Amino acid sequence: MNMTLDQAEKAIAAAKKKAVAIDTKMNIAVVDAGANLVAFARMDGAWLGSLDISIKKAKTARFFDMNTGVVGELSQPGGSLYNIEHSNNGLITFPGGIPIKNSKDEIIGAIGVSGSSVENDHAVAEAGATSI
Amino acid sequence: MNMTLDQAEKAIAAAKKKAVAIDTKMNIAVVDAGANLVAFARMDGAWLGSLDISIKKAKTARFFDMNTGVVGELSQPGGSLYNIEHSNNGLITFPGGIPIKNSKDEIIGAIGVSGSSVENDHAVAEAGATSI
Amino acid sequence: MNMTLDQAEKAIAAAKKKAVAIDTKMNIAVVDAGANLVAFARMDGAWLGSLDISIKKAKTARFFDMNTGVVGELSQPGGSLYNIEHSNNGLITFPGGIPIKNSKDEIIGAIGVSGSSVENDHAVAEAGATSI
Amino acid sequence: MNMTLDQAEKAIAAAKKKAVAIDTKMNIAVVDAGANLVAFARMDGAWLGSLDISIKKAKTARFFDMNTGVVGELSQPGGSLYNIEHSNNGLITFPGGIPIKNSKDEIIGAIGVSGSSVENDHAVAEAGATSI
Repeated sequence: MNMTLDQAEKAIAAAKKKAVAIDTKMNIAVVDAGANLVAFARMDGAWLGSLDISIKKAKTARFFDMNTGVVGELSQPGGSLYNIEHSNNGLITFPGGIPIKNSKDEIIGAIGVSGSSVENDHAVAEAGATSI
Repeated sequence: MNMTLDQAEKAIAAAKKKAVAIDTKMNIAVVDAGANLVAFARMDGAWLGSLDISIKKAKTARFFDMNTGVVGELSQPGGSLYNIEHSNNGLITFPGGIPIKNSKDEIIGAIGVSGSSVENDHAVAEAGATSI
Repeated sequence: MNMTLDQAEKAIAAAKKKAVAIDTKMNIAVVDAGANLVAFARMDGAWLGSLDISIKKAKTARFFDMNTGVVGELSQPGGSLYNIEHSNNGLITFPGGIPIKNSKDEIIGAIGVSGSSVENDHAVAEAGATSI
Repeated sequence: MNMTLDQAEKAIAAAKKKAVAIDTKMNIAVVDAGANLVAFARMDGAWLGSLDISIKKAKTARFFDMNTGVVGELSQPGGSLYNIEHSNNGLITFPGGIPIKNSKDEIIGAIGVSGSSVENDHAVAEAGATSI
Protein backbone atom coordinates (compact mmCIF):
# COMPACT_ATOMS: atom_id res chain seq x y z
CA MET A 1 0.00 0.00 0.00
CA ASN A 2 1.23 3.46 -0.86
CA MET A 3 -0.06 7.03 -0.79
CA THR A 4 -2.11 8.01 -3.85
CA LEU A 5 -2.20 11.54 -5.25
CA ASP A 6 -5.91 11.70 -4.40
CA GLN A 7 -5.15 10.93 -0.78
CA ALA A 8 -2.29 13.43 -0.67
CA GLU A 9 -4.45 16.21 -2.16
CA LYS A 10 -7.22 15.40 0.30
CA ALA A 11 -4.75 15.73 3.17
CA ILE A 12 -3.47 19.05 1.84
CA ALA A 13 -7.02 20.39 1.41
CA ALA A 14 -7.88 19.46 5.01
CA ALA A 15 -4.64 20.99 6.27
CA LYS A 16 -5.27 24.23 4.35
CA LYS A 17 -8.78 24.46 5.79
CA LYS A 18 -7.39 24.11 9.33
CA ALA A 19 -4.64 26.64 8.60
CA VAL A 20 -7.22 29.20 7.51
CA ALA A 21 -9.39 28.42 10.53
CA ILE A 22 -6.56 29.28 12.92
CA ASP A 23 -5.41 32.24 10.83
CA THR A 24 -2.02 30.91 9.73
CA LYS A 25 -0.15 30.62 6.41
CA MET A 26 1.49 27.25 5.91
CA ASN A 27 3.75 25.18 3.70
CA ILE A 28 2.30 21.66 3.48
CA ALA A 29 4.12 18.60 2.08
CA VAL A 30 3.00 14.98 1.70
CA VAL A 31 5.42 12.10 1.02
CA ASP A 32 4.73 8.46 0.19
CA ALA A 33 5.99 5.25 1.85
CA GLY A 34 9.35 5.72 0.11
CA ALA A 35 9.64 9.22 1.64
CA ASN A 36 9.35 10.82 -1.81
CA LEU A 37 7.19 13.92 -2.37
CA VAL A 38 3.67 13.29 -3.70
CA ALA A 39 2.07 16.72 -3.30
CA PHE A 40 2.95 20.15 -1.92
CA ALA A 41 1.28 23.52 -1.41
CA ARG A 42 2.64 26.86 -0.15
CA MET A 43 -0.11 29.22 0.98
CA ASP A 44 0.14 32.86 -0.17
CA GLY A 45 2.40 34.82 2.15
CA ALA A 46 3.74 31.75 3.98
CA TRP A 47 7.39 31.91 5.12
CA LEU A 48 9.70 30.98 2.28
CA GLY A 49 12.11 29.21 4.63
CA SER A 50 9.31 26.90 5.69
CA LEU A 51 9.16 25.33 2.23
CA ASP A 52 12.19 23.12 2.86
CA ILE A 53 11.25 22.61 6.52
CA SER A 54 7.81 21.22 5.64
CA ILE A 55 9.32 18.72 3.20
CA LYS A 56 12.01 17.69 5.71
CA LYS A 57 9.36 17.25 8.44
CA ALA A 58 7.33 14.94 6.20
CA LYS A 59 10.44 12.93 5.30
CA THR A 60 11.60 12.74 8.93
CA ALA A 61 8.19 11.45 10.09
CA ARG A 62 8.31 8.66 7.48
CA PHE A 63 12.01 7.94 7.99
CA PHE A 64 11.34 6.93 11.60
CA ASP A 65 7.55 6.29 11.55
CA MET A 66 6.90 8.71 14.40
CA ASN A 67 5.95 12.33 14.97
CA THR A 68 8.89 14.63 14.36
CA GLY A 69 8.61 16.13 17.84
CA VAL A 70 9.31 12.72 19.39
CA VAL A 71 12.61 12.52 17.54
CA GLY A 72 13.42 16.03 18.77
CA GLU A 73 12.94 15.05 22.40
CA LEU A 74 15.67 12.43 21.96
CA SER A 75 18.07 14.60 19.94
CA GLN A 76 18.66 17.30 22.55
CA PRO A 77 22.14 17.83 24.04
CA GLY A 78 22.81 14.85 26.29
CA GLY A 79 19.98 12.87 24.64
CA SER A 80 20.46 9.47 23.08
CA LEU A 81 20.04 10.77 19.51
CA TYR A 82 21.94 14.08 19.86
CA ASN A 83 22.55 15.68 16.46
CA ILE A 84 20.72 12.98 14.47
CA GLU A 85 19.64 15.96 12.31
CA HIS A 86 22.94 15.67 10.40
CA SER A 87 21.76 12.47 8.70
CA ASN A 88 19.66 12.04 5.55
CA ASN A 89 20.64 15.43 4.10
CA GLY A 90 19.08 17.18 7.08
CA LEU A 91 16.23 16.23 9.37
CA ILE A 92 13.76 18.56 11.09
CA THR A 93 12.92 17.23 14.54
CA PHE A 94 10.47 19.70 16.05
CA PRO A 95 6.68 19.20 15.81
CA GLY A 96 4.78 19.43 12.53
CA GLY A 97 5.55 16.07 10.88
CA ILE A 98 3.15 13.13 11.33
CA PRO A 99 3.01 9.65 9.72
CA ILE A 100 -0.14 8.85 7.73
CA LYS A 101 -1.82 5.44 8.04
CA ASN A 102 -4.42 3.67 5.91
CA SER A 103 -7.53 1.91 7.25
CA LYS A 104 -5.44 -1.21 7.96
CA ASP A 105 -3.16 0.81 10.26
CA GLU A 106 -0.26 0.57 7.76
CA ILE A 107 1.95 3.62 7.32
CA ILE A 108 1.62 4.82 3.72
CA GLY A 109 3.47 8.13 4.00
CA ALA A 110 3.62 11.29 6.08
CA ILE A 111 2.67 14.97 6.17
CA GLY A 112 4.88 17.89 7.14
CA VAL A 113 3.69 21.42 7.94
CA SER A 114 5.67 24.58 8.64
CA GLY A 115 4.77 28.28 8.85
CA SER A 116 3.71 29.19 12.38
CA SER A 117 4.37 28.05 15.96
CA VAL A 118 5.21 24.37 16.30
CA GLU A 119 1.89 23.88 18.11
CA ASN A 120 0.02 25.34 15.14
CA ASP A 121 2.19 23.41 12.67
CA HIS A 122 1.34 20.17 14.49
CA ALA A 123 -2.38 20.99 14.64
CA VAL A 124 -2.51 21.64 10.90
CA ALA A 125 -0.52 18.46 10.16
CA GLU A 126 -2.91 16.47 12.32
CA ALA A 127 -5.90 17.86 10.45
CA GLY A 128 -4.28 16.63 7.25
CA ALA A 129 -3.19 13.25 8.58
CA THR A 130 -6.58 12.37 10.05
CA SER A 131 -8.47 13.30 6.86
CA ILE A 132 -7.32 10.09 5.14
CA MET B 1 2.79 40.47 -9.02
CA ASN B 2 3.49 36.90 -8.05
CA MET B 3 2.02 33.44 -8.50
CA THR B 4 -0.76 32.66 -6.02
CA LEU B 5 -1.47 29.16 -4.72
CA ASP B 6 -4.87 29.32 -6.43
CA GLN B 7 -3.19 29.99 -9.76
CA ALA B 8 -0.62 27.25 -9.22
CA GLU B 9 -3.31 24.72 -8.33
CA LYS B 10 -5.33 25.77 -11.37
CA ALA B 11 -2.28 25.18 -13.57
CA ILE B 12 -1.66 21.76 -12.01
CA ALA B 13 -5.32 20.77 -12.48
CA ALA B 14 -5.18 21.78 -16.17
CA ALA B 15 -1.89 19.93 -16.63
CA LYS B 16 -3.26 16.79 -14.97
CA LYS B 17 -6.31 16.90 -17.24
CA LYS B 18 -4.09 17.10 -20.30
CA ALA B 19 -1.84 14.32 -18.98
CA VAL B 20 -4.83 12.02 -18.59
CA ALA B 21 -6.12 13.00 -22.04
CA ILE B 22 -2.88 11.88 -23.69
CA ASP B 23 -2.56 8.82 -21.43
CA THR B 24 0.57 9.83 -19.53
CA LYS B 25 1.58 9.93 -15.86
CA MET B 26 3.35 13.14 -14.92
CA ASN B 27 5.20 14.98 -12.19
CA ILE B 28 4.06 18.63 -12.26
CA ALA B 29 5.74 21.51 -10.42
CA VAL B 30 4.90 25.22 -10.26
CA VAL B 31 7.31 27.86 -8.96
CA ASP B 32 6.74 31.55 -8.28
CA ALA B 33 8.66 34.63 -9.47
CA GLY B 34 11.37 33.82 -6.92
CA ALA B 35 11.78 30.36 -8.49
CA ASN B 36 10.56 28.73 -5.26
CA LEU B 37 8.07 25.87 -5.29
CA VAL B 38 4.40 26.85 -4.84
CA ALA B 39 2.64 23.58 -5.66
CA PHE B 40 3.52 20.08 -6.81
CA ALA B 41 1.74 16.87 -7.77
CA ARG B 42 3.06 13.41 -8.71
CA MET B 43 0.45 11.32 -10.51
CA ASP B 44 0.08 7.69 -9.40
CA GLY B 45 2.64 5.51 -11.18
CA ALA B 46 4.65 8.42 -12.58
CA TRP B 47 8.43 7.92 -12.80
CA LEU B 48 10.07 8.60 -9.46
CA GLY B 49 13.10 10.19 -11.12
CA SER B 50 10.86 12.75 -12.78
CA LEU B 51 10.02 14.33 -9.43
CA ASP B 52 13.30 16.21 -9.25
CA ILE B 53 13.35 16.82 -13.01
CA SER B 54 9.93 18.53 -13.00
CA ILE B 55 11.02 20.89 -10.22
CA LYS B 56 14.32 21.63 -11.97
CA LYS B 57 12.50 22.33 -15.24
CA ALA B 58 10.20 24.83 -13.54
CA LYS B 59 13.14 26.55 -11.84
CA THR B 60 15.20 26.61 -15.06
CA ALA B 61 12.31 28.21 -17.00
CA ARG B 62 12.01 30.98 -14.39
CA PHE B 63 15.78 31.36 -13.90
CA PHE B 64 16.11 32.45 -17.53
CA ASP B 65 12.50 33.42 -18.41
CA MET B 66 12.38 31.10 -21.40
CA ASN B 67 11.29 27.58 -22.27
CA THR B 68 13.77 25.00 -21.01
CA GLY B 69 14.25 23.57 -24.48
CA VAL B 70 15.59 26.93 -25.70
CA VAL B 71 18.31 26.81 -23.05
CA GLY B 72 19.10 23.26 -24.13
CA GLU B 73 19.72 24.33 -27.71
CA LEU B 74 22.45 26.66 -26.45
CA SER B 75 24.00 24.22 -23.97
CA GLN B 76 25.11 21.58 -26.49
CA PRO B 77 28.80 20.85 -27.07
CA GLY B 78 30.24 23.86 -28.89
CA GLY B 79 27.24 25.98 -27.96
CA SER B 80 27.47 29.32 -26.20
CA LEU B 81 26.05 27.97 -22.92
CA TYR B 82 27.79 24.60 -22.99
CA ASN B 83 27.18 22.67 -19.75
CA ILE B 84 25.22 25.47 -18.09
CA GLU B 85 23.44 22.57 -16.35
CA HIS B 86 26.20 22.60 -13.72
CA SER B 87 24.91 25.85 -12.23
CA ASN B 88 22.15 26.42 -9.68
CA ASN B 89 22.45 22.97 -8.12
CA GLY B 90 21.53 21.43 -11.46
CA LEU B 91 19.43 22.66 -14.37
CA ILE B 92 17.29 20.59 -16.74
CA THR B 93 17.41 22.05 -20.23
CA PHE B 94 15.23 19.81 -22.38
CA PRO B 95 11.57 20.65 -23.07
CA GLY B 96 8.89 20.60 -20.36
CA GLY B 97 9.54 23.87 -18.51
CA ILE B 98 7.60 27.03 -19.47
CA PRO B 99 7.37 30.51 -17.89
CA ILE B 100 3.92 31.60 -16.72
CA LYS B 101 2.68 35.15 -17.38
CA ASN B 102 -0.22 37.12 -15.95
CA SER B 103 -2.73 39.13 -18.00
CA LYS B 104 -0.27 42.07 -18.13
CA ASP B 105 2.33 39.82 -19.79
CA GLU B 106 4.50 39.86 -16.65
CA ILE B 107 6.27 36.62 -15.74
CA ILE B 108 4.95 35.45 -12.36
CA GLY B 109 6.52 32.01 -12.25
CA ALA B 110 6.91 28.82 -14.26
CA ILE B 111 5.69 25.26 -14.66
CA GLY B 112 7.79 22.12 -15.10
CA VAL B 113 6.51 18.73 -16.25
CA SER B 114 8.29 15.37 -16.51
CA GLY B 115 7.14 11.80 -17.02
CA SER B 116 6.93 10.98 -20.72
CA SER B 117 8.58 12.04 -24.00
CA VAL B 118 9.78 15.65 -24.04
CA GLU B 119 7.07 16.42 -26.59
CA ASN B 120 4.40 15.16 -24.20
CA ASP B 121 6.05 16.87 -21.24
CA HIS B 122 5.96 20.18 -23.13
CA ALA B 123 2.34 19.73 -24.21
CA VAL B 124 1.23 19.11 -20.64
CA ALA B 125 3.27 22.06 -19.36
CA GLU B 126 1.68 24.29 -22.00
CA ALA B 127 -1.81 23.18 -20.94
CA GLY B 128 -0.92 24.25 -17.42
CA ALA B 129 0.79 27.52 -18.36
CA THR B 130 -2.04 28.70 -20.61
CA SER B 131 -4.72 27.97 -18.01
CA ILE B 132 -3.75 31.07 -16.01
CA MET C 1 5.00 -5.36 -3.41
CA ASN C 2 8.50 -4.34 -2.51
CA MET C 3 11.98 -5.88 -2.57
CA THR C 4 12.79 -8.01 0.47
CA LEU C 5 16.29 -8.37 1.91
CA ASP C 6 16.20 -12.08 1.04
CA GLN C 7 15.51 -11.22 -2.60
CA ALA C 8 18.22 -8.57 -2.66
CA GLU C 9 20.80 -10.93 -1.17
CA LYS C 10 19.82 -13.61 -3.66
CA ALA C 11 20.36 -11.14 -6.50
CA ILE C 12 23.75 -10.12 -5.13
CA ALA C 13 24.84 -13.76 -4.74
CA ALA C 14 23.86 -14.51 -8.34
CA ALA C 15 25.64 -11.39 -9.56
CA LYS C 16 28.80 -12.25 -7.64
CA LYS C 17 28.80 -15.75 -9.09
CA LYS C 18 28.56 -14.32 -12.60
CA ALA C 19 31.28 -11.75 -11.84
CA VAL C 20 33.64 -14.53 -10.76
CA ALA C 21 32.74 -16.62 -13.81
CA ILE C 22 33.82 -13.84 -16.17
CA ASP C 23 36.82 -12.90 -14.03
CA THR C 24 35.73 -9.44 -12.92
CA LYS C 25 35.54 -7.58 -9.60
CA MET C 26 32.29 -5.72 -9.10
CA ASN C 27 30.39 -3.33 -6.89
CA ILE C 28 26.77 -4.54 -6.72
CA ALA C 29 23.84 -2.52 -5.32
CA VAL C 30 20.15 -3.38 -4.98
CA VAL C 31 17.44 -0.77 -4.29
CA ASP C 32 13.75 -1.20 -3.50
CA ALA C 33 10.66 0.30 -5.17
CA GLY C 34 11.36 3.61 -3.40
CA ALA C 35 14.89 3.66 -4.90
CA ASN C 36 16.42 3.23 -1.45
CA LEU C 37 19.36 0.84 -0.88
CA VAL C 38 18.47 -2.63 0.40
CA ALA C 39 21.78 -4.48 0.03
CA PHE C 40 25.27 -3.81 -1.30
CA ALA C 41 28.52 -5.73 -1.83
CA ARG C 42 31.95 -4.59 -3.04
CA MET C 43 34.12 -7.50 -4.17
CA ASP C 44 37.74 -7.52 -3.01
CA GLY C 45 39.89 -5.40 -5.29
CA ALA C 46 36.94 -3.79 -7.12
CA TRP C 47 37.37 -0.17 -8.23
CA LEU C 48 36.60 2.18 -5.38
CA GLY C 49 35.00 4.72 -7.74
CA SER C 50 32.52 2.10 -8.83
CA LEU C 51 30.92 2.03 -5.38
CA ASP C 52 28.94 5.22 -6.00
CA ILE C 53 28.39 4.34 -9.66
CA SER C 54 26.75 1.01 -8.83
CA ILE C 55 24.35 2.68 -6.40
CA LYS C 56 23.52 5.45 -8.89
CA LYS C 57 22.93 2.86 -11.64
CA ALA C 58 20.45 0.99 -9.44
CA LYS C 59 18.66 4.22 -8.53
CA THR C 60 18.59 5.42 -12.15
CA ALA C 61 17.07 2.12 -13.33
CA ARG C 62 14.27 2.42 -10.77
CA PHE C 63 13.81 6.16 -11.25
CA PHE C 64 12.79 5.58 -14.87
CA ASP C 65 11.88 1.86 -14.85
CA MET C 66 14.26 1.05 -17.68
CA ASN C 67 17.82 -0.13 -18.23
CA THR C 68 20.32 2.64 -17.58
CA GLY C 69 21.82 2.28 -21.05
CA VAL C 70 18.48 3.20 -22.63
CA VAL C 71 18.50 6.50 -20.76
CA GLY C 72 22.06 7.06 -21.94
CA GLU C 73 21.08 6.68 -25.58
CA LEU C 74 18.65 9.60 -25.13
CA SER C 75 20.98 11.81 -23.09
CA GLN C 76 23.74 12.20 -25.68
CA PRO C 77 24.53 15.65 -27.13
CA GLY C 78 21.62 16.56 -29.38
CA GLY C 79 19.43 13.87 -27.78
CA SER C 80 16.06 14.59 -26.21
CA LEU C 81 17.31 14.03 -22.66
CA TYR C 82 20.73 15.68 -22.97
CA ASN C 83 22.36 16.17 -19.56
CA ILE C 84 19.53 14.52 -17.61
CA GLU C 85 22.39 13.23 -15.44
CA HIS C 86 22.31 16.51 -13.50
CA SER C 87 19.03 15.55 -11.83
CA ASN C 88 18.43 13.47 -8.72
CA ASN C 89 21.86 14.20 -7.22
CA GLY C 90 23.53 12.54 -10.18
CA LEU C 91 22.40 9.78 -12.51
CA ILE C 92 24.56 7.18 -14.25
CA THR C 93 23.21 6.45 -17.71
CA PHE C 94 25.51 3.86 -19.23
CA PRO C 95 24.71 0.12 -19.02
CA GLY C 96 24.80 -1.82 -15.75
CA GLY C 97 21.49 -0.84 -14.13
CA ILE C 98 18.39 -3.02 -14.61
CA PRO C 99 14.89 -2.92 -13.03
CA ILE C 100 13.85 -6.02 -11.08
CA LYS C 101 10.34 -7.45 -11.42
CA ASN C 102 8.39 -9.95 -9.34
CA SER C 103 6.41 -12.90 -10.70
CA LYS C 104 3.44 -10.58 -11.41
CA ASP C 105 5.64 -8.43 -13.67
CA GLU C 106 5.58 -5.55 -11.17
CA ILE C 107 8.80 -3.57 -10.68
CA ILE C 108 9.93 -4.03 -7.08
CA GLY C 109 13.37 -2.40 -7.32
CA ALA C 110 16.55 -2.46 -9.36
CA ILE C 111 20.16 -3.68 -9.45
CA GLY C 112 23.24 -1.66 -10.36
CA VAL C 113 26.66 -3.12 -11.17
CA SER C 114 29.97 -1.35 -11.83
CA GLY C 115 33.58 -2.50 -12.02
CA SER C 116 34.45 -3.59 -15.54
CA SER C 117 33.39 -2.83 -19.14
CA VAL C 118 29.76 -1.73 -19.48
CA GLU C 119 29.08 -4.99 -21.32
CA ASN C 120 30.36 -6.98 -18.37
CA ASP C 121 28.57 -4.69 -15.90
CA HIS C 122 25.30 -5.32 -17.73
CA ALA C 123 25.85 -9.08 -17.93
CA VAL C 124 26.46 -9.28 -14.18
CA ALA C 125 23.44 -7.07 -13.44
CA GLU C 126 21.29 -9.30 -15.64
CA ALA C 127 22.45 -12.40 -13.78
CA GLY C 128 21.32 -10.71 -10.57
CA ALA C 129 18.03 -9.37 -11.92
CA THR C 130 16.94 -12.69 -13.42
CA SER C 131 17.68 -14.65 -10.26
CA ILE C 132 14.56 -13.30 -8.55
CA MET D 1 45.50 -5.45 5.97
CA ASN D 2 41.99 -4.51 4.93
CA MET D 3 38.42 -5.75 5.35
CA THR D 4 37.45 -8.45 2.84
CA LEU D 5 33.92 -8.90 1.52
CA ASP D 6 33.84 -12.32 3.20
CA GLN D 7 34.60 -10.71 6.55
CA ALA D 8 32.05 -7.96 6.00
CA GLU D 9 29.33 -10.44 5.07
CA LYS D 10 30.22 -12.56 8.11
CA ALA D 11 29.84 -9.48 10.32
CA ILE D 12 26.48 -8.63 8.76
CA ALA D 13 25.22 -12.20 9.19
CA ALA D 14 26.21 -12.16 12.87
CA ALA D 15 24.60 -8.75 13.35
CA LYS D 16 21.38 -9.87 11.66
CA LYS D 17 21.25 -12.96 13.90
CA LYS D 18 21.60 -10.78 16.99
CA ALA D 19 18.99 -8.31 15.66
CA VAL D 20 16.49 -11.14 15.24
CA ALA D 21 17.33 -12.52 18.70
CA ILE D 22 16.43 -9.21 20.37
CA ASP D 23 13.42 -8.65 18.09
CA THR D 24 14.67 -5.58 16.19
CA LYS D 25 14.88 -4.56 12.53
CA MET D 26 18.22 -3.02 11.64
CA ASN D 27 20.19 -1.29 8.93
CA ILE D 28 23.75 -2.68 9.02
CA ALA D 29 26.77 -1.19 7.21
CA VAL D 30 30.41 -2.32 7.08
CA VAL D 31 33.23 -0.07 5.82
CA ASP D 32 36.87 -0.89 5.16
CA ALA D 33 40.07 0.79 6.40
CA GLY D 34 39.48 3.57 3.86
CA ALA D 35 36.04 4.22 5.39
CA ASN D 36 34.36 3.13 2.16
CA LEU D 37 31.32 0.84 2.14
CA VAL D 38 32.03 -2.88 1.68
CA ALA D 39 28.64 -4.40 2.45
CA PHE D 40 25.21 -3.29 3.59
CA ALA D 41 21.87 -4.84 4.50
CA ARG D 42 18.51 -3.29 5.43
CA MET D 43 16.23 -5.75 7.18
CA ASP D 44 12.57 -5.84 6.05
CA GLY D 45 10.58 -3.16 7.83
CA ALA D 46 13.63 -1.37 9.27
CA TRP D 47 13.37 2.43 9.52
CA LEU D 48 14.19 4.04 6.19
CA GLY D 49 15.98 6.94 7.91
CA SER D 50 18.38 4.51 9.56
CA LEU D 51 19.92 3.60 6.20
CA ASP D 52 22.03 6.74 6.08
CA ILE D 53 22.61 6.70 9.84
CA SER D 54 24.08 3.18 9.81
CA ILE D 55 26.54 4.11 7.07
CA LYS D 56 27.49 7.35 8.85
CA LYS D 57 28.04 5.44 12.11
CA ALA D 58 30.38 2.99 10.40
CA LYS D 59 32.31 5.82 8.75
CA THR D 60 32.49 7.84 11.98
CA ALA D 61 33.87 4.82 13.89
CA ARG D 62 36.62 4.35 11.31
CA PHE D 63 37.30 8.08 10.86
CA PHE D 64 38.37 8.30 14.51
CA ASP D 65 39.06 4.64 15.35
CA MET D 66 36.71 4.66 18.33
CA ASN D 67 33.12 3.81 19.17
CA THR D 68 30.73 6.47 17.90
CA GLY D 69 29.31 7.02 21.38
CA VAL D 70 32.73 8.12 22.62
CA VAL D 71 32.85 10.85 20.00
CA GLY D 72 29.35 11.89 21.06
CA GLU D 73 30.44 12.41 24.66
CA LEU D 74 32.98 14.96 23.43
CA SER D 75 30.67 16.71 20.94
CA GLN D 76 28.09 17.99 23.45
CA PRO D 77 27.63 21.72 24.05
CA GLY D 78 30.72 22.94 25.92
CA GLY D 79 32.62 19.78 24.98
CA SER D 80 36.00 19.80 23.26
CA LEU D 81 34.57 18.52 19.96
CA TYR D 82 31.32 20.50 20.01
CA ASN D 83 29.38 20.01 16.75
CA ILE D 84 32.06 17.90 15.09
CA GLU D 85 29.05 16.33 13.31
CA HIS D 86 29.29 19.11 10.71
CA SER D 87 32.46 17.60 9.22
CA ASN D 88 32.84 14.83 6.64
CA ASN D 89 29.41 15.39 5.08
CA GLY D 90 27.80 14.55 8.40
CA LEU D 91 28.86 12.35 11.30
CA ILE D 92 26.63 10.35 13.64
CA THR D 93 28.07 10.32 17.12
CA PHE D 94 25.67 8.32 19.24
CA PRO D 95 26.24 4.57 19.92
CA GLY D 96 26.01 1.93 17.20
CA GLY D 97 29.33 2.37 15.37
CA ILE D 98 32.33 0.19 16.33
CA PRO D 99 35.80 -0.26 14.77
CA ILE D 100 36.65 -3.79 13.60
CA LYS D 101 40.08 -5.29 14.25
CA ASN D 102 41.88 -8.30 12.85
CA SER D 103 43.69 -10.96 14.88
CA LYS D 104 46.78 -8.71 15.07
CA ASP D 105 44.71 -5.97 16.72
CA GLU D 106 44.92 -3.79 13.61
CA ILE D 107 41.83 -1.80 12.67
CA ILE D 108 40.62 -3.00 9.26
CA GLY D 109 37.27 -1.19 9.13
CA ALA D 110 34.12 -0.58 11.13
CA ILE D 111 30.47 -1.56 11.49
CA GLY D 112 27.49 0.77 11.93
CA VAL D 113 24.01 -0.28 13.04
CA SER D 114 20.78 1.73 13.28
CA GLY D 115 17.12 0.85 13.75
CA SER D 116 16.27 0.66 17.45
CA SER D 117 17.43 2.19 20.75
CA VAL D 118 21.10 3.15 20.84
CA GLU D 119 21.67 0.35 23.37
CA ASN D 120 20.24 -2.20 20.94
CA ASP D 121 22.08 -0.64 18.01
CA HIS D 122 25.37 -0.98 19.92
CA ALA D 123 24.63 -4.57 20.97
CA VAL D 124 23.96 -5.60 17.37
CA ALA D 125 27.07 -3.77 16.15
CA GLU D 126 29.15 -5.54 18.79
CA ALA D 127 27.81 -8.92 17.69
CA GLY D 128 28.96 -8.08 14.17
CA ALA D 129 32.34 -6.63 15.17
CA THR D 130 33.32 -9.56 17.39
CA SER D 131 32.41 -12.16 14.77
CA ILE D 132 35.58 -11.41 12.79
